[in-house]
Amino acid sequence: MSEISEVIDLNRFDETAVVEDPGLAAALARRRASFGAASVLFYDRPIHMARASGAWMYDVDGRGYLDLYNNVPCIGHSHPAVAEAIARQAGILNTNTRYLVDIVHDYAERLLAEFPAGLDNVVLTCTGSESNDLALRMAEAFTGRRGVIVTELAYHGNSSSTTAISPGSRADRSVPAHVRTVPPPEAFRSGDADPGASFGAAVQAAIDDLGRAGFGISALIIDTIFSSDGVYAAPEGLLVPAVEAVQAAGGLFIADEVQPGFGRTGQSMWGFGAHGVTPDIVTMGKPMGNGFPMSGAVTRPEILTAFCARNAGYFNTFGGNPLAAAAGLAVLDTLKGEGLLANASAMGAHLREGVRGLCGEGSVIGDVRGAGLFLGVEISRPGTREPDGAAARAVINGLRERGVMVGATGPFGNVLKVRPPLCFNRDDAAAFLTALAEVCVPLAR
Amino acid sequence: MSEISEVIDLNRFDETAVVEDPGLAAALARRRASFGAASVLFYDRPIHMARASGAWMYDVDGRGYLDLYNNVPCIGHSHPAVAEAIARQAGILNTNTRYLVDIVHDYAERLLAEFPAGLDNVVLTCTGSESNDLALRMAEAFTGRRGVIVTELAYHGNSSSTTAISPGSRADRSVPAHVRTVPPPEAFRSGDADPGASFGAAVQAAIDDLGRAGFGISALIIDTIFSSDGVYAAPEGLLVPAVEAVQAAGGLFIADEVQPGFGRTGQSMWGFGAHGVTPDIVTMGKPMGNGFPMSGAVTRPEILTAFCARNAGYFNTFGGNPLAAAAGLAVLDTLKGEGLLANASAMGAHLREGVRGLCGEGSVIGDVRGAGLFLGVEISRPGTREPDGAAARAVINGLRERGVMVGATGPFGNVLKVRPPLCFNRDDAAAFLTALAEVCVPLAR
Repeated sequence: MSEISEVIDLNRFDETAVVEDPGLAAALARRRASFGAASVLFYDRPIHMARASGAWMYDVDGRGYLDLYNNVPCIGHSHPAVAEAIARQAGILNTNTRYLVDIVHDYAERLLAEFPAGLDNVVLTCTGSESNDLALRMAEAFTGRRGVIVTELAYHGNSSSTTAISPGSRADRSVPAHVRTVPPPEAFRSGDADPGASFGAAVQAAIDDLGRAGFGISALIIDTIFSSDGVYAAPEGLLVPAVEAVQAAGGLFIADEVQPGFGRTGQSMWGFGAHGVTPDIVTMGKPMGNGFPMSGAVTRPEILTAFCARNAGYFNTFGGNPLAAAAGLAVLDTLKGEGLLANASAMGAHLREGVRGLCGEGSVIGDVRGAGLFLGVEISRPGTREPDGAAARAVINGLRERGVMVGATGPFGNVLKVRPPLCFNRDDAAAFLTALAEVCVPLAR
Repeated sequence: MSEISEVIDLNRFDETAVVEDPGLAAALARRRASFGAASVLFYDRPIHMARASGAWMYDVDGRGYLDLYNNVPCIGHSHPAVAEAIARQAGILNTNTRYLVDIVHDYAERLLAEFPAGLDNVVLTCTGSESNDLALRMAEAFTGRRGVIVTELAYHGNSSSTTAISPGSRADRSVPAHVRTVPPPEAFRSGDADPGASFGAAVQAAIDDLGRAGFGISALIIDTIFSSDGVYAAPEGLLVPAVEAVQAAGGLFIADEVQPGFGRTGQSMWGFGAHGVTPDIVTMGKPMGNGFPMSGAVTRPEILTAFCARNAGYFNTFGGNPLAAAAGLAVLDTLKGEGLLANASAMGAHLREGVRGLCGEGSVIGDVRGAGLFLGVEISRPGTREPDGAAARAVINGLRERGVMVGATGPFGNVLKVRPPLCFNRDDAAAFLTALAEVCVPLAR
């Protein structure tokens, strides 16, 4: 399953639907024949995609879709900087890390320069799941304990070990014996005046419970913008009580930056940056190579040393290959060169302001939150704070019919997940806000 | 750790060595500062690599190394077909499988056409570890049982679940309670006249033992050329008794083709092809994209359906992206267009014949075996069949000083692992055989 568990429930292509477009029907038949039961597609009517550029994707009929869903192409779809970098490197050298290769070290140093002092080692891997699997094992090797704390709807990967700590991937939200779940720092529906304190208290209770159960606390792992729990980024410092509790108990704080990382939150390269905390391990993935499959885990040397002593080292065939380094450097260069953090910050504020203008009496938009270009838009029954997943599905499919793509998240699938490429501009914002206003009108009271 | 556990013991760079070359010392210092304890490098004197083409790699001083180690660049290093394919696709569209994208389906269909009827579904992933993790979970979901049988030195991945079934990754060769190990079908030292029957009997005993322990048999997973156990490919049909025993007991046979797959064994696209068995699941990785990070698992629809029903589907962010499809198509096209299976078969026979010419009284070369361009060369104490790991290390480092790269495998690290790109030619073979003869002479009795 995936981060899109909620979307699969609310917004998944109905496999029994009759598709009248012969081209689409043929593409669907090919898909089903080869991918079989694992064929997950978006939307009531899936999109047969042909090309993409910047914040726009285009289907085989040339129809454009403004992409506010995909957070992987962070510097923009089909960015020439990445295409040129990997093409150049692919003609020179692609090999593994058992040899010394300069571009790999150039990238490792450039990446580590984006982290607080002390987080001085990096392990380059291929997927966010691999990074989180490694992070869990590093924490266990360093602390000598097994207990892990996650949020109620956490998604940390698709492998067996990361699925185990991803209750959001299961309908019953269950977790294994050594895992505890805590509610995210939700404030809109609960009216909680200090969600950070409440979150910290829940984490402390989970630490105590893991101690009583004999597991002890190995790690608290959090997606630092709570992507799957409903998108929570405020107030600044939100994470401090929870992280202090874990670190005081000798556990590690693993910041899962697979979704918020690489400048999306605007203020900082990392989601944890706004909260005044220093993780013990940071994992990253999706936007790291703008779509080139690559990921990583950054940590303190003593943590990596403890892991390697226990496991006789770590080697990853494709991890840290020179093509990945070339793609990663192109992403870092473009984030800086095109001023994309500042753009994420400015455009994020502009978008939130625009969406806020659609709130108000009778509207299905109850709340807008987030940081930079990672927004959560809460769809509620007008005049209440009650979540309305059915209305969210109508909004998502209505936007799709208007050529705008967003996702959904949260326990009720009612929070629009808005994550455009960081090159998103004012025209793109205007197009989104116009379409959102149109689809929300018939749903208003 | 990795498939190279043996090489790490025998052939790993000594971290305490004084390096007098200032350029190499500087590159090593950069490596240690960023990669820390996870910095595994080959050779007594690591290589600072700059570029590669065909079967040759070149260091920063322009020195060439004939590559008989790396099985990832199967169609040759820096092959323009792959470089051009990913460059073209990177400028058009790179996205995930929640949309329908033609090139992804082109690839899925082309790949599936290489498998026996019935193996009709493919799941595209990013690393061999991800494929094997998924294969284990598919087998458990389909059989309802947990027991797994692996060979004594098996290596099936670097994630927590695949490390658990990789005794070759641990000094003590231990496995968890639900895993049983069996010796590989070794015949040179044992003199076993029917290694396939012995292997089948060991697998049957492991099935019985898993039954008594209450786990039951979920899967037998085998690297079909026994890459980490010492390279065993003969006689044809070797796997039949073991696979029949597992399938008769209701377990699945998982063929791990991450190392032998994609034509390396010459006769067939897959290592299992020579043995007259049909796997229930086939996993693949390393050479699939000639270095582009990609992997996959192929299986019967009912097995994938059982997995998806239990796990609410499967989604992999980077798995099956259009760049991977482009790289994979370029690999399949080149394997066919350049006749690389036939070349692997012919050059493999030529190499084995050449190495056999270096065997004989007084030589450290005791045996040569394998299939196609995956050779195992047993280094023994002259006049005996006793493994000589120290001599193998001397051979490997001696070859490296002569600009030829090979690896080592097997329980004593004494089997040279020879796996050149499939474009390997007669001149390359002559260069290797000359260097091998030179390094073996001073070791002879």
